[in-house]
Amino acid sequence: MQIEVLRLGHRLPRDERISTHVALVARAFGASAMAYTGQHDAGLEESIRRICGNWGGEFPITYEKSVTAVIKKHKRDGFTIVHLTMYGLALPDVLPAIKSRGKILVVVGSEQVPREIYELADFNVSITNQPHSEVAALAMTLDRLMEGKELEPHDFGGRIRIVPSARGKDVVETR
Amino acid sequence: MQIEVLRLGHRLPRDERISTHVALVARAFGASAMAYTGQHDAGLEESIRRICGNWGGEFPITYEKSVTAVIKKHKRDGFTIVHLTMYGLALPDVLPAIKSRGKILVVVGSEQVPREIYELADFNVSITNQPHSEVAALAMTLDRLMEGKELEPHDFGGRIRIVPSARGKDVVETR
Repeated sequence: MQIEVLRLGHRLPRDERISTHVALVARAFGASAMAYTGQHDAGLEESIRRICGNWGGEFPITYEKSVTAVIKKHKRDGFTIVHLTMYGLALPDVLPAIKSRGKILVVVGSEQVPREIYELADFNVSITNQPHSEVAALAMTLDRLMEGKELEPHDFGGRIRIVPSARGKDVVETR
Repeated sequence: MQIEVLRLGHRLPRDERISTHVALVARAFGASAMAYTGQHDAGLEESIRRICGNWGGEFPITYEKSVTAVIKKHKRDGFTIVHLTMYGLALPDVLPAIKSRGKILVVVGSEQVPREIYELADFNVSITNQPHSEVAALAMTLDRLMEGKELEPHDFGGRIRIVPSARGKDVVETR
């Protein structure tokens, strides 16, 4: 399964940290790339590149001007569009249908998501119908798509590695 | 099972939104209360009260001056202290032991967590050993403690309710 993430409507400075968390969760939980729309943010891109440089793996992050263009491009490339929204159908109810698809674009919104996205999405999916966090919604969705495998030991091949520890910080750095 | 959350080292304005997301995830995913340390933030407390007023349920949020005092108080009250940190033991490995306890305080840190917290915790637990987000770490931990039940239909009894919908926004407001 190939999973990519699209973060909508990034605003500066308001979304700086939330969008960074979205990107880091996407990377740590098994997505292979992220695109974002809204305001261009070189700092966001640089901080994700730095994380990859230290912690390993490839995780391209790209800015896109047009939301509809990037979604339509993914559709043409065979991606199923999964839009996370508290108004959508409950994740457990649509998960089997989503998991039968090979390529998935998970779309996470910001404050106000244009009506159009609800129409373009193949699935509008809710992670509870309560207000909470796009970071948590993304983590839960990726967890269910990955069937919990993201929590198992996994080597990203980075120069910094953590050895799980009951009480301390056991960090291995190479180079 | 009774679950409470402790958010460490809240800083203004830097953590405004992240701590709000932490609190909203705690509420939506089955915790019953949250305490926080760091800087006092009336705005954070007010926004969580407003969410409860509209969306239902009780979710007390309280400011605590001393991290050690609030953890020790919870220990005296029979809580098991579960500190989320990327340096800790993998969640799947310690989950059975944690789930055998009746009262759990989930502690989520900010940038720099004092060494002391690692000592005070009954469990230091990692949600992957990669950098990502305390919001996601909390959601995943609560999800595993709740055995996924937080994703099932659940009435918070609020005046605003969402009816899950494949393509639109179906919101029921009373009063």
